Amino acid sequence: MFSAETYTERRRALAEKVDSGLILFLGNLEAPMNYASNTYPFRQDSNFLYFFGIDRPGLAATLDAGTGETIVYGDELTMDDIVWTGDLPTISEQAEAAGVFKTAPMVALESAVKGKSVHYTPPYRGKNIIWISELLSITPAAAKSGASMELIRGIISLRSYKSAEEVEQLDIAVRVTEAMHIRAMEVARPGLTEAQVHAAIQETVHSYDSHTSFLPIVSVRGEVLHNHSHSNLMNSGQLLLVDCGGESPMHYAGDMTRTFPVDTTFNDQQRDIYQVVLASQVTAVEMCRPGVAYRDVHLEAARVITYGLKELGLMKGDPEEAVEAGAHALFFPHGLGHAMGLDVHDMEDLGENYVGYDERYERSDQFGLAFLRLGKELEPGFTITVEPGVYFIPQLIDQWKAEGLHSRFIDFDALDAYRTFGGIRIEENLLITGDSSRLLGDGIPKTVEDIEELRG
Amino acid sequence: MFSAETYTERRRALAEKVDSGLILFLGNLEAPMNYASNTYPFRQDSNFLYFFGIDRPGLAATLDAGTGETIVYGDELTMDDIVWTGDLPTISEQAEAAGVFKTAPMVALESAVKGKSVHYTPPYRGKNIIWISELLSITPAAAKSGASMELIRGIISLRSYKSAEEVEQLDIAVRVTEAMHIRAMEVARPGLTEAQVHAAIQETVHSYDSHTSFLPIVSVRGEVLHNHSHSNLMNSGQLLLVDCGGESPMHYAGDMTRTFPVDTTFNDQQRDIYQVVLASQVTAVEMCRPGVAYRDVHLEAARVITYGLKELGLMKGDPEEAVEAGAHALFFPHGLGHAMGLDVHDMEDLGENYVGYDERYERSDQFGLAFLRLGKELEPGFTITVEPGVYFIPQLIDQWKAEGLHSRFIDFDALDAYRTFGGIRIEENLLITGDSSRLLGDGIPKTVEDIEELRG
Repeated sequence: MFSAETYTERRRALAEKVDSGLILFLGNLEAPMNYASNTYPFRQDSNFLYFFGIDRPGLAATLDAGTGETIVYGDELTMDDIVWTGDLPTISEQAEAAGVFKTAPMVALESAVKGKSVHYTPPYRGKNIIWISELLSITPAAAKSGASMELIRGIISLRSYKSAEEVEQLDIAVRVTEAMHIRAMEVARPGLTEAQVHAAIQETVHSYDSHTSFLPIVSVRGEVLHNHSHSNLMNSGQLLLVDCGGESPMHYAGDMTRTFPVDTTFNDQQRDIYQVVLASQVTAVEMCRPGVAYRDVHLEAARVITYGLKELGLMKGDPEEAVEAGAHALFFPHGLGHAMGLDVHDMEDLGENYVGYDERYERSDQFGLAFLRLGKELEPGFTITVEPGVYFIPQLIDQWKAEGLHSRFIDFDALDAYRTFGGIRIEENLLITGDSSRLLGDGIPKTVEDIEELRG
Repeated sequence: MFSAETYTERRRALAEKVDSGLILFLGNLEAPMNYASNTYPFRQDSNFLYFFGIDRPGLAATLDAGTGETIVYGDELTMDDIVWTGDLPTISEQAEAAGVFKTAPMVALESAVKGKSVHYTPPYRGKNIIWISELLSITPAAAKSGASMELIRGIISLRSYKSAEEVEQLDIAVRVTEAMHIRAMEVARPGLTEAQVHAAIQETVHSYDSHTSFLPIVSVRGEVLHNHSHSNLMNSGQLLLVDCGGESPMHYAGDMTRTFPVDTTFNDQQRDIYQVVLASQVTAVEMCRPGVAYRDVHLEAARVITYGLKELGLMKGDPEEAVEAGAHALFFPHGLGHAMGLDVHDMEDLGENYVGYDERYERSDQFGLAFLRLGKELEPGFTITVEPGVYFIPQLIDQWKAEGLHSRFIDFDALDAYRTFGGIRIEENLLITGDSSRLLGDGIPKTVEDIEELRG
């Protein structure tokens, strides 16, 4: 945990942003896998972590926006609990460490919220939807849609700007993530399965007593953007795309991608596309600084890809017009990146558009650009990912070709030689500083030469 | 998946056991970790797996108990889905593989259940509670408590008896589990952390493209029965308790425990207690056969422990009386074992007492025996765990000592030398055969000699 002062100050700042009423924080409960007591690894709600730091299931808290009074609710362990789960600090001890000096048993929460104007964040787990519905005597549907815009905007205005101690956690998370990637690059060989590389990544992250910050992608079919299957055998001539991240001890997330040949060296086709993606990624990283709109960085990254693919004969026509029209999205159908912090897509529970867009930058509905989670101007303290990619998605190619979509900009015949290529993505994590940006973590091989040296 | 005939026959047998009405199966949905789209690894509901075998989120099915008509509900992938998650067999293809020839989009489910007498199993995930509540227009509380006893008993009467092809899956799961344990015994050394051993276990299970069947326990504080923290350094003179399991490709569970010294050999105190637990475990395994009540096996295992601890001077008085009174439960506070299958505690979602007890064997409320999940007579086709243990739980010892509880049978002063001992548990998995039982898997070191040889 950070210091009690840190949490106290965060709550004071939040109370100031919410005019009046009672702010209700529901921590996460255990999440059942196949029956109630067989649970997934516990993950505390990130807003609860940010304002209270207590990493334990079954807690709630209230913050009176007017008076600032704060209460943590939870039930102390019984002797039966201690036999099964061991001794823990008491809830009052943990609350005090977060600067909260008033605690109450969970049964007291219902009367505490009764008749109050209650602010809560959008619940994303079924159990918490039911919890809110029962506390406030409303339907689950009303509980789900009844979150407070004032609270959402207040939290985003705080969590968007990472403090020095948060950046320290993010550096740790990215270093764990880098170790996972180095391990993957060390072990992947033709004849092994994706599962074996995934296993090595899991060993690395767990050896830090950490967890993955999201389900790892380890796939020779990198063109499937969120491919969580690891069942393929890795063959010579294929690329392996690895997108994974670990958490810091305080649950900040890392999120990096590397793509490398299953062989020790890239073949010509792989090297050509890799250089296009790398140029796009490097250009984008260089552009990131305060005052630059991330949508413009995304579009510039798309332009570099389009120029590159034109040079390789896969695209044609005017690259600027092609990007304007969205033709590049056949190859680069996702956004350039997103905010990261306590969540790998930071604060996505609060609403992607409130986190990544504002009155000046509105979300596009064009295929590709529509998936860009962050469009607004970058500011000091933002932490973000930069992750362009080029993919050859047979189903999408066939659909566009059949519809003649963007045929002015795409040479569909030339794509035949790439149908089993897969995809390439390169992803790093940045902190936006006062006048520029810096890489989080230490940096790991990214160029063709450095990757081939590590793989050799 | 098993053959279409297998699933068809299971559903036919179930329909016969439920008099009339519509049986509703809700598959599991994705389970959010810290926001909706950042999910835990998907785990299908075990009842859905048993009757349909389709391992994919977002499905439901109905089975008309009268007519036998079966429909699988789900929505086909859109092109946007394919870009993100890749191509999958269609729902009709998957349903046909399970012997179901009628499918419908999810939106059709509501009208299908309207006005019907609907049977469903007890929901354990919040989202499914809400789903039922919305489908049947009832409150979440009513949805949670409204499961069908007829359906519960019908399913238990089928799933309790494992077919040859299920036993094959369980053998695979136990072999994965054995590999995890061998790996743990190979890597654990003084100066490493529990997390590093846990990491090695995770690598082993993931290298089979499998998942853990429950959160692994890897702890030098084995006396904390469900200790999921892995933060301790392992020191010379300590024991490491490892309780973990992997899943077979079709999601059957393994569940084994080994306890071994962090050093390469047991010290005298450790060896003494280990031999007591081992004698108890071996006796219990030998007793397991059709017609024997598992409660009697549990009590015999407790007696062996009590005789052993008396010999070591930790218990006193008449061992038979001590077990009758429940005095052994200070050291052996949990049950001897439980049913296992698609769930590590098989069918626990349906109700522990319906699975493990019947009209002849009722659950005790005595401390210790109350935690025994399986009490009834063993039958051919049952698969179970056998897992006695001896633990020294300082908080429990202090409480019993202060209350003078069972002081006729326990030498509390002698326990002072064991306050930091931890705990020992030895667990194996058995199939009850026609006239006896056999070990699932291949068997791994269990005696002091065999463990020391592997560790040396």
